[in-house]
Amino acid sequence: MKTKAAVAWKAASPLTIEEVDLEGPKAGEVLVEIKATGICHTDYYTLSGADPEGIFPAILGHEGAGIVLEVGPGVTSVKKDDHVIPLYTPECRQCKFCLSRKTNLCQQIRATQGRGLMPDGTSRFSIDGKPLLHYMGTSTFSNYIVVPEIALAKIRSDAPFDKACYIGCGVTTGVGAVVFSAKVEAGANVVVFGLGGIGLNVIQGAKMVGADKIIGVDINPGRIEMARKFGMTHFVNPKEVGNVVDHIVQLTDGGADYSFECIGNTTTMRQALECTHKGWGQSFIIGVAAAGQEISTRPFQLVTGREWKGSAFGGARGRTDVPKIVDWYMDGKINIDDLITHTLPLERINEGFDLMKSGESIRSVVLY
Amino acid sequence: MKTKAAVAWKAASPLTIEEVDLEGPKAGEVLVEIKATGICHTDYYTLSGADPEGIFPAILGHEGAGIVLEVGPGVTSVKKDDHVIPLYTPECRQCKFCLSRKTNLCQQIRATQGRGLMPDGTSRFSIDGKPLLHYMGTSTFSNYIVVPEIALAKIRSDAPFDKACYIGCGVTTGVGAVVFSAKVEAGANVVVFGLGGIGLNVIQGAKMVGADKIIGVDINPGRIEMARKFGMTHFVNPKEVGNVVDHIVQLTDGGADYSFECIGNTTTMRQALECTHKGWGQSFIIGVAAAGQEISTRPFQLVTGREWKGSAFGGARGRTDVPKIVDWYMDGKINIDDLITHTLPLERINEGFDLMKSGESIRSVVLY
Repeated sequence: MKTKAAVAWKAASPLTIEEVDLEGPKAGEVLVEIKATGICHTDYYTLSGADPEGIFPAILGHEGAGIVLEVGPGVTSVKKDDHVIPLYTPECRQCKFCLSRKTNLCQQIRATQGRGLMPDGTSRFSIDGKPLLHYMGTSTFSNYIVVPEIALAKIRSDAPFDKACYIGCGVTTGVGAVVFSAKVEAGANVVVFGLGGIGLNVIQGAKMVGADKIIGVDINPGRIEMARKFGMTHFVNPKEVGNVVDHIVQLTDGGADYSFECIGNTTTMRQALECTHKGWGQSFIIGVAAAGQEISTRPFQLVTGREWKGSAFGGARGRTDVPKIVDWYMDGKINIDDLITHTLPLERINEGFDLMKSGESIRSVVLY
Repeated sequence: MKTKAAVAWKAASPLTIEEVDLEGPKAGEVLVEIKATGICHTDYYTLSGADPEGIFPAILGHEGAGIVLEVGPGVTSVKKDDHVIPLYTPECRQCKFCLSRKTNLCQQIRATQGRGLMPDGTSRFSIDGKPLLHYMGTSTFSNYIVVPEIALAKIRSDAPFDKACYIGCGVTTGVGAVVFSAKVEAGANVVVFGLGGIGLNVIQGAKMVGADKIIGVDINPGRIEMARKFGMTHFVNPKEVGNVVDHIVQLTDGGADYSFECIGNTTTMRQALECTHKGWGQSFIIGVAAAGQEISTRPFQLVTGREWKGSAFGGARGRTDVPKIVDWYMDGKINIDDLITHTLPLERINEGFDLMKSGESIRSVVLY
């Protein structure tokens, strides 16, 4: 079949809208009509050429929502007309990682996904007979996609696609880091470094679970109003305090119980660890640092009880936890609407990248 | 009263045996007759002058066992003739740290202890009218000591002092790191960097809880025999394998579930983290690095699920958990006898330091 898609031909070039050939689903695979997709920093990172694992030509996009059109042989967990969110972190429930009960990082199709291919080692996308690569196992910048069954979360059918799509990455990454990775308890003090989309979702996750102080750290005071709306109780501008770590330790009477780094800066990663409480502070790295950069600290920070951890896709198991987050949105427990600052048709997708780059948008969503 | 004690007059000088004046216990304090004390690397570290927090003149020693001789007003948890282990990490059960349920690092008397003083800000030791400092709140190189009630673990009276004293630091630090800090589960794969006294105790802790592979890493093959006796299943000599991390990842089919750094070397701390399993590997720093040294890694190590932690005094709550470890020893669940390689009278304590420095001893114990 044919599908309209935004193609990334090479790094650091605008996407072009093309009619792309899409092969139908093979065994264990599903054909999905994407109805909406967010534009995430990771798409931008790859398109910019800074991502050492970026490969082209490819169809980017990994934050979508849509409807099952057709299932391949042997597919049992979804059927035609089911509403779904594609998962760049799948959940096979059979690999060593899924069965460990200790991680959400299913590795069942990791190798082929990293090479831009379906599990059988081929691409379903082509143009003029030449293959185009998949991206993060999802490629939601295509109106129609084929994905493995294990990479689809079935969600309720009354959730609007233009909001639910954001749960495919940003919302789950932020809210999930609080709920699934850190398991923040009511009454805890939480610090969030970076008040972009991920940081705001961490904040609303912390509010949802009943955190006490929720401290936002950002050099951009323009984010204060939105962050307060989402639950931030205190704002710290590193440009206005002498020492960020000391300031937070005082503000929290000894340090934060949990901190989350949502920037990708190795200096703030260290600050995020060291501003946590002696004895039990836990710091989670969410942001992606530039290739080759390293984090450092004195080992004494850890020996005296702080823990340095990370969170990917919010620690959420895609098929198990993503539908819960959709419920939380539909129940009004989390706010997505205010984070979707722009919606665009596919034809204007490059404008969405520009809005992100300028900092004007929190999230731009492309509608098909 | 008078007590015989080994006095450290200044850094990098031998101890001298002196008759020291000891003031009796004040409110909340206890007079203890020390019957045996181990000589630990931390005593050596302080005596060497490398410890930036070392202060002199002082009576060192923090790994003792003895008998209560007299209790001050208000003391309720121990009485005359009780057998006890002095605790450099006390357990007041009332401070923010104790009540957090998340750490063993009671801070009730931390400030004065760090200054070599009793909680009232004075010393109980003096010689010719000039005060001598306490050390780690214990000073077990003195035949008699005065300590706060909250710094005494009451233990069973049939445990031999010359073995039980080692539970005051080394045994608890190693076995506790496995049991209390990491909570290693049966079937887990464990890697131990450094096969000194702490490493051997980590190994026997891992064996006790039913670990599967227990991999020891050391550049000294002389420790293989003892480590195997304590439960080591595999030995890795970094001098004999190309890349320690890759070697361990292969040996464990993806990485260790838990690793423990028992050397104090920031290079092996990084290796210990990076040889753990993607998704859930936990690495614990136990060793004390030289002042000013830092640990580093790529943040990707944490974002993909590894956790970097530390352990102090094995995560054990002194009054609650130390008596349990004494029970484990008396029940034959852990072996202390083979780790006590030398016993000496107080007069020969400097020989004990020499034995440690040369690597000839695992643990030397001083008997009063």
